[in-house]
Amino acid sequence: MALTPARTMPGVLELLPLDQIAFQRMLDTIRRNYERFGFLPIETPAIEYADVLLTKTGGETERQVYFVQSTGALEQGEKPELALRFDLTVPLARYVAQHEHELTFPFRRYQMQRVYRGERAQRGRFREFYQCDIDVIGKDTLSIRYDAEMPAVIHSVFRELDIGPFTIQLNNRKLMRGYFESLGIADGERQMLVLREVDKLDKRGADYVRATLTGEPFGLSAAVTEKILAFVQTRSTSLADAFEKLDALGAGPAAMEQGRAELKEVLALVRDFGVPESHFALNLSIARGLDYYTGTVYETTLNEHPQIGSICSGGRYDNLASQYTASKLPGVGISIGLTRLYWQLREAGLVDRARSTVDVLVTQMDESQLPRYLALAGELRAGGIATEVVLEGGKLGKQFKYADRAGIRFVVVLGEDEIARGVVTVKDLRRGDQFEVPRAELVKTLRVELEQAAAMG
Amino acid sequence: MALTPARTMPGVLELLPLDQIAFQRMLDTIRRNYERFGFLPIETPAIEYADVLLTKTGGETERQVYFVQSTGALEQGEKPELALRFDLTVPLARYVAQHEHELTFPFRRYQMQRVYRGERAQRGRFREFYQCDIDVIGKDTLSIRYDAEMPAVIHSVFRELDIGPFTIQLNNRKLMRGYFESLGIADGERQMLVLREVDKLDKRGADYVRATLTGEPFGLSAAVTEKILAFVQTRSTSLADAFEKLDALGAGPAAMEQGRAELKEVLALVRDFGVPESHFALNLSIARGLDYYTGTVYETTLNEHPQIGSICSGGRYDNLASQYTASKLPGVGISIGLTRLYWQLREAGLVDRARSTVDVLVTQMDESQLPRYLALAGELRAGGIATEVVLEGGKLGKQFKYADRAGIRFVVVLGEDEIARGVVTVKDLRRGDQFEVPRAELVKTLRVELEQAAAMG
Repeated sequence: MALTPARTMPGVLELLPLDQIAFQRMLDTIRRNYERFGFLPIETPAIEYADVLLTKTGGETERQVYFVQSTGALEQGEKPELALRFDLTVPLARYVAQHEHELTFPFRRYQMQRVYRGERAQRGRFREFYQCDIDVIGKDTLSIRYDAEMPAVIHSVFRELDIGPFTIQLNNRKLMRGYFESLGIADGERQMLVLREVDKLDKRGADYVRATLTGEPFGLSAAVTEKILAFVQTRSTSLADAFEKLDALGAGPAAMEQGRAELKEVLALVRDFGVPESHFALNLSIARGLDYYTGTVYETTLNEHPQIGSICSGGRYDNLASQYTASKLPGVGISIGLTRLYWQLREAGLVDRARSTVDVLVTQMDESQLPRYLALAGELRAGGIATEVVLEGGKLGKQFKYADRAGIRFVVVLGEDEIARGVVTVKDLRRGDQFEVPRAELVKTLRVELEQAAAMG
Repeated sequence: MALTPARTMPGVLELLPLDQIAFQRMLDTIRRNYERFGFLPIETPAIEYADVLLTKTGGETERQVYFVQSTGALEQGEKPELALRFDLTVPLARYVAQHEHELTFPFRRYQMQRVYRGERAQRGRFREFYQCDIDVIGKDTLSIRYDAEMPAVIHSVFRELDIGPFTIQLNNRKLMRGYFESLGIADGERQMLVLREVDKLDKRGADYVRATLTGEPFGLSAAVTEKILAFVQTRSTSLADAFEKLDALGAGPAAMEQGRAELKEVLALVRDFGVPESHFALNLSIARGLDYYTGTVYETTLNEHPQIGSICSGGRYDNLASQYTASKLPGVGISIGLTRLYWQLREAGLVDRARSTVDVLVTQMDESQLPRYLALAGELRAGGIATEVVLEGGKLGKQFKYADRAGIRFVVVLGEDEIARGVVTVKDLRRGDQFEVPRAELVKTLRVELEQAAAMG
């Protein structure tokens, strides 16, 4: 039989075990922090009915959808009625609408699953990737205070992920809308077109944006254009500075005043939640999709790696599930696209892949002592220490080399001499030293070492 | 706009948060035990090339495959070249063949992901379900000792899952094949047909099986039929009993002798691995798919719930990935179908769904004290205690009711009186009592309570 080449489709990130361990550590850290803030887990099926997934989305999303058909349906030439989820927001909306009467509101959920998009294959673009989302959903109303909880969670997650200094940036869609109104740009679509041009500031420069906005079809005055540029370039350096800059915008229409009041309340509460002022700021350029978010919006950037872009984004929306239920379900949420973030951190050399989940390798020095080695490993495991036993034997040097390549830190040797003296030899491959411990104290000693290592990160 | 009914396709198990927490606890327990034995994590994409997935499988599997197409491919009327994985074994084979030169052998991997099968919708049958697999893959050879490690892992997992007494049952395909040969049934396919009839013993009774095997088309003699029935009804009650019963089978052809020697070595080592003799047994009726497994085979049953069938199965195979690589890759592995197991345990009333992941609810007695409540919650979280803060306020009674419905054990009250006296009132909803602690000792006190609760399971 001819061999089939073993390969995966482009656009997936398949990892070797040590890389998978580093990835899993990030997933675990995110989950631990989501749980610490009292979010509850849900999981939804990867396959949903296509009509359920595609109620709200436009043509562009539709082109990226993966449709699913069982062999039977395919043979009958049916149009696929199933599809893979392309985000976790639509499944959340469906979930909340479907289980509305069994849930307690405000409903605080986290969800960390893979999503699927038929993207064009391109470096750094993924067709399958993890999203790690939290949302709080209210019934009829939801206090603006929840908008301040999101940055607290973001801060807690990224502090513990330990990938360098970061800034959580906040804006408010109402403030933005109101400010554009006050400049005579009242139409939502026109606001979006202007913002799209303004988004090119970093890449094309201010002169390019000025020329575009004052030219056709925008035809804005030079004065209005300068005001827009000044607005979107607003950044705060402290909470007091944020308040000052918000006040300095001057009076405006109702939407602007409401947005300003919300932003002030949220910023002050973010501080009360314990987020240091060094880690959050006003950034009036943040827009996120104009039609979905209606109030607070967030982006998070790594101070030393701005090119990575936002590593955690989200915002407030008025109604989660209007396509499925007449109930009004306002909410606020954030999302971490972990596959892309992991990939970028790895590209930037910021992922440590040297540590295995396996703590100890029990070597096999003398085949006839195997039951003793198995008993020793059993004790280590009962003590919560992840332990592999060499079952096949071979030269001790080869066994050490295996541990080293596999990222296992401790190698335990129990030969005739050690057995006679009631001790165990432990080689610490990370520190490159070796020590003897009484057999009865092995578990305790290694637990202390491992707890110290874990505490040091 | 007309509402779209919010619904999932049949054959998926979507859980409410408290059920999801119970499910997640089982996943975590399995993972912790897999890691404790030194297995390394991998994850593979849900979508694979159809030709890669379907090299080895027969027509029956093919009919259950979900094919995948992006919108673009669908519009062009192409035949789908992508499909969803239907197990974790084929992706493992593809993974090992693809990354062969980057892996260290024996390669010990665990993988806990969902798989997809276009099954007919039926109660207790799932189209999407979790498999939790471990395998050890050797290059060219793999010591039989690894066959004894599998029951040690199974024992460790199910002891900690705490779902009642269980028995790991072992057999060996070579012994079985050799014994049938010694009875004059040498052809593999004929052996399979006989075993399929013998499988009906429990349901149809011995007389039915006797009549079938002595009748057409089998035409076995009464003596051979009795030998077969005696063989497949062999069960051991201890290690010594297992050895005796294996010896009592008498001498046989080479395959039988090899199978017997393997089974003896494995059984003795299972005991050396620390598995109590009450938890493993010889069961000569275990066959598992005849073509895939070549040596040791396992099934695990709950002693008090035999109707659930095997909750963890697996075995030894000669060559993992012959469809992708010329390298010889023998292996041994087991699989837990967790979605089905969870569903069956829940049906049997064996799943505890009362506990939330949220440990503490900080109530909001006095809105003006919110910063104080947030600071308190921050301290609890920093102490590793999962804490939700009531942000919207409302009557205290309603806040207590919320905690109770949500399965949150501790409710913290900090009113004017408590603030003045430097204390906090804690209500324990599980025990139904209430106590006061000095503000500074709250974290320590709750940690002790929670650790005790965790230790008691």
